[in-house]
Amino acid sequence: MSDPLIALIETIRQIVPLSETDTTLIKSVFQPYRLKKGEYFVQQGQVCQHVGFIHTGLVRYFVNQDGDEKIYDFGLENDFVCDYESFLPQRPCRRTIQAIEESDLLVISLSNLQRLFAQLTHGERFGRVAIEQIFVKTIGQLVSLYTDAPELRYQAFLENYPTLSTRITQYHIASYVGVKPQSLSRIRARWAGKHYSRLSSPE
Amino acid sequence: MSDPLIALIETIRQIVPLSETDTTLIKSVFQPYRLKKGEYFVQQGQVCQHVGFIHTGLVRYFVNQDGDEKIYDFGLENDFVCDYESFLPQRPCRRTIQAIEESDLLVISLSNLQRLFAQLTHGERFGRVAIEQIFVKTIGQLVSLYTDAPELRYQAFLENYPTLSTRITQYHIASYVGVKPQSLSRIRARWAGKHYSRLSSPE
Repeated sequence: MSDPLIALIETIRQIVPLSETDTTLIKSVFQPYRLKKGEYFVQQGQVCQHVGFIHTGLVRYFVNQDGDEKIYDFGLENDFVCDYESFLPQRPCRRTIQAIEESDLLVISLSNLQRLFAQLTHGERFGRVAIEQIFVKTIGQLVSLYTDAPELRYQAFLENYPTLSTRITQYHIASYVGVKPQSLSRIRARWAGKHYSRLSSPE
Repeated sequence: MSDPLIALIETIRQIVPLSETDTTLIKSVFQPYRLKKGEYFVQQGQVCQHVGFIHTGLVRYFVNQDGDEKIYDFGLENDFVCDYESFLPQRPCRRTIQAIEESDLLVISLSNLQRLFAQLTHGERFGRVAIEQIFVKTIGQLVSLYTDAPELRYQAFLENYPTLSTRITQYHIASYVGVKPQSLSRIRARWAGKHYSRLSSPE
């Protein structure tokens, strides 16, 4: 298994160039953190204290809507994980992030993240671009919960998470798509039918 | 009426210090833009081409949910306005931003904004902090649409927009709160009652 710090540094290097001093700083401000299956990265009502980098494992993000858990996103290997709405202003979460599989993370506190922004050669640029990417993705996931029909959300699930359907339950997929598990089966059947017709079409 | 450029520069200066060269650059990359009442800053399906700074006026942000317009935010004087989910990756909007009042803006294109991030003394820091603030606010507005009961959303409306209730229609307030206009009247009556009881309470 690869070194989580190397994976983290490669992920940051996709955004900004890093000097040797930069990588030494990165290694000094992240700490290893393990979540068992079912444990929470952060729960609704708590203040989110860290940004995590997922080396191995899988988490789900959900909001509680009238007692129903609505999954709106998943976090996989090489993703950053955080409830920024809580973390940045340090106020209680309105969402929960929970490990679906045992997950090995590297985590950084707010004060160390601010040190990273200030002290990395291109720290502020890293901060800006990383938060822009996360912003666009998170807004997209939340708007999609409102505006996209279940079929479209199932299609997006398959496209965004091609390897996930064998790692999560039908309940999780149905919650992400926004339907009851029995409706998901009908969507899957229709989807399989369409897909087959398209493949066998003579044009 | 004050100079919109002075208001813009003061707003940016609340985030980062600005030199004289910085303010000259800011003046050169923003253009005046007027929206008539009812005109769109950007419509669902279009690509958002600008970030705007609202000097005077008022806009609403809404998503279309099964044919219903759901207002989730307003933009007022001294706010930045943009659909970042469309603007940053330059893909079609899933939301609409429309002027409720005639609005005078200063707008900047994506290429000029990137110039600003690169060339202002603390341009990257400005970009990071500004996008963090907008991210936290936008996520909050969207999550609130799901998780908060109408009473709580009405309370948040009064707190976040204390001067707005005389500038917008009952329809707009009801859409923001997430109820039909007739339900809003009942919420307002209950709210007024509670408020009165609290004021006249003997403790």
